[in-house]
Amino acid sequence: MRDETHDPARQSWVPGAAGHPDFPLQNLPFGVLSTGDRPRVGVAIGDHVLDLAALEAAGLVRPDPERTVFDAPALNPFMALGPAAWQATREALSRLLGGEDARLRDDPVLTGRALIPAERAMLQLPFKVAEYTDFYASREHATNVGTMFRGPDNALPANWLHIPIGYNGRASTVVVSGGGIVRPMGQLKAPGDQAPRFGASERLDFELEVGAVVGTATAMGTRLSTAQADRAIFGYVLLNDWSARDIQVWEYVPLGPFQSKAFATSISPWVVTAAALEPFRTEAPGRLAPLLPYLHEDTPNNLDLELAVDLAPADGEPATIARTNASGLYYSSAQQLAHHTACGCAMSVGDLLGSGTVSGRAPGSYGSLLELAWNGAHPVRLSDGTSRTFLADGDTVTLRGWCARDGAARIGFGACRGTILPAHA
Amino acid sequence: MRDETHDPARQSWVPGAAGHPDFPLQNLPFGVLSTGDRPRVGVAIGDHVLDLAALEAAGLVRPDPERTVFDAPALNPFMALGPAAWQATREALSRLLGGEDARLRDDPVLTGRALIPAERAMLQLPFKVAEYTDFYASREHATNVGTMFRGPDNALPANWLHIPIGYNGRASTVVVSGGGIVRPMGQLKAPGDQAPRFGASERLDFELEVGAVVGTATAMGTRLSTAQADRAIFGYVLLNDWSARDIQVWEYVPLGPFQSKAFATSISPWVVTAAALEPFRTEAPGRLAPLLPYLHEDTPNNLDLELAVDLAPADGEPATIARTNASGLYYSSAQQLAHHTACGCAMSVGDLLGSGTVSGRAPGSYGSLLELAWNGAHPVRLSDGTSRTFLADGDTVTLRGWCARDGAARIGFGACRGTILPAHA
Repeated sequence: MRDETHDPARQSWVPGAAGHPDFPLQNLPFGVLSTGDRPRVGVAIGDHVLDLAALEAAGLVRPDPERTVFDAPALNPFMALGPAAWQATREALSRLLGGEDARLRDDPVLTGRALIPAERAMLQLPFKVAEYTDFYASREHATNVGTMFRGPDNALPANWLHIPIGYNGRASTVVVSGGGIVRPMGQLKAPGDQAPRFGASERLDFELEVGAVVGTATAMGTRLSTAQADRAIFGYVLLNDWSARDIQVWEYVPLGPFQSKAFATSISPWVVTAAALEPFRTEAPGRLAPLLPYLHEDTPNNLDLELAVDLAPADGEPATIARTNASGLYYSSAQQLAHHTACGCAMSVGDLLGSGTVSGRAPGSYGSLLELAWNGAHPVRLSDGTSRTFLADGDTVTLRGWCARDGAARIGFGACRGTILPAHA
Repeated sequence: MRDETHDPARQSWVPGAAGHPDFPLQNLPFGVLSTGDRPRVGVAIGDHVLDLAALEAAGLVRPDPERTVFDAPALNPFMALGPAAWQATREALSRLLGGEDARLRDDPVLTGRALIPAERAMLQLPFKVAEYTDFYASREHATNVGTMFRGPDNALPANWLHIPIGYNGRASTVVVSGGGIVRPMGQLKAPGDQAPRFGASERLDFELEVGAVVGTATAMGTRLSTAQADRAIFGYVLLNDWSARDIQVWEYVPLGPFQSKAFATSISPWVVTAAALEPFRTEAPGRLAPLLPYLHEDTPNNLDLELAVDLAPADGEPATIARTNASGLYYSSAQQLAHHTACGCAMSVGDLLGSGTVSGRAPGSYGSLLELAWNGAHPVRLSDGTSRTFLADGDTVTLRGWCARDGAARIGFGACRGTILPAHA
């Protein structure tokens, strides 16, 4: 599906868009903005946000002839139109912002109204999260956590090389980047304690993940192939699956994580479309055991996506504490979604699938503090000279992601940020 | 909150309502019906369904002065009005159907339009399920399943006497009683197998549960006390948490059940209100370990609710294969909801909380075939002379529930039914 929308030689006439590290003409990620009034859909272009509700009202884009889809507080109505509408809209926006279609560029009244400086656009949760499922696709992460929670002999569960393991998370607490994250209360029980106590988590952590956004619903009873699943994914966000490790280790046997994850999940405000990421497809790692046929892939469905975690103490500068790449994930989002439907589970427009924490092999490539500080054994040094085994109040965690390859324009995800606030005791 | 709506001496003028085993004047459960046209809200009264959209249009009930809430395909708009509106509506309906307010009884045109014979009312999913959480509140069930899955030494997890253990389920496949349940496909691996295979579940089971329906939303960061949680529950349904045991046992370590439960969950069409169940509050079982203060209860929040499971083979008569009572659950729905919010998890109108499988102490009081047939060791005999260790295609499972006590009118839940259909291979 590579087409002229990926051509790195093309540039936008929007000031500052050419060579923008995140949002050049080839990206065109979708989000929801407001400027103090009603929320509506926009795309990022350089340091501006293009108001698609204004373009739709002017007739320059019209994905649904029957009704408006961009004058809406969420991407769901647009996503529900399906892949053909997504691609037609991408091509139309690429021509409008590239200048081949001059109707926007040559209309100063419309550009004045529709092209909003990014600092004036308040970005909101980009879509209504129907349900949230979190997977566990990094073999390195699963091995690291398994070693700490269950010992090295039981680190990787017996099913892990066969099943894209996942569990249902909580959709009602998925929030957009930028807000405060209140330290959760919960049941805590240290190994030597006789009984649990109720208190503020002392082992608060982040998890660096990539979230896939399902754009196509399926009926109950429908199984998707990996190819169908790949086409059903509208796009991707950065996702921070905030985790209270002390609550988690006490609660998770036998039915899995619950309150340790339910207090908050942050996502980046821009949904980078699967279409924009076409040039960055890459092969999954080699298989250590044969996969069942329903998980076979006909195309490379992994993403060559660079990831970084910055951690800043209150009043301190951020330090990059982890660097990794999503290409090493053992299961792609397409495989996860295909597995999700294997039993006939119905999927909805706006379902969010977390990849699982992205960890690499080297210690500096781990996607959680639990792993980076190895369960407290190796504290992580920050810019102000302090160190962390888990997050402190006032800490700001910023996830960043970008795709960069020779012969392609760099595609950025922007930032997914959250600041830890004290618990409500 | 006992008031004249519970008075067992009062009777409805609706023919057949007096002494009805499920739906006398004291019950008034809410559901959604259609008669081939648009879905709308109704209450069951005897063998009739009262169309509340018709009553609202006629001005006899008007929970929201600003807009209609009963001319809607789900109970959510009505539930969102809150407990005062629920109670006022219950009292108004009780007077209209009891005859103290004669405006309905004495208006033959309106009764002809609004009072629909039950056989003409097609009952639909009564509310839009926001999210579905399944708990694990029966000590007997947890012990039985733990014994079979992990051996007698690890049967009851260490946290079980302290935490109302729960996990997030899948809302998109919650369906109303009466439909077919397609046997799911999934990864299966018998203990002796070298590798899993993909096939139709051979160990399909039901789980007898009670579902609590959350009627009041909470903001992220809000913790509910058990008393606040109790007031936030609009009502209860019967719930069948269909389970594929062979998929479950292979997938559930370490993150909990996923595809083994996601193919279908059935609920009864009538939401029996918490108000109607006031006379049937009962104390929880004695505590085997002290509970943390946030789980303490000021009122008896368990329900004295009789439960039964009927199993009928294709073309055969139903046999009652289990009888139990929800009163023995170790954690009430109020405790489960309070725990759900302990970390600050936001709750939504329409959240559904499954109690967990209701099992008693005696073998005939177990709420799943896994337990009734003790993992295949003791097949359950059916009416046609065949026996079951797990469900066969064509089997119909019917859950029934009712509350009966001296000095109170009997309150029934009706039936929650599903018939197993062959897998889509």
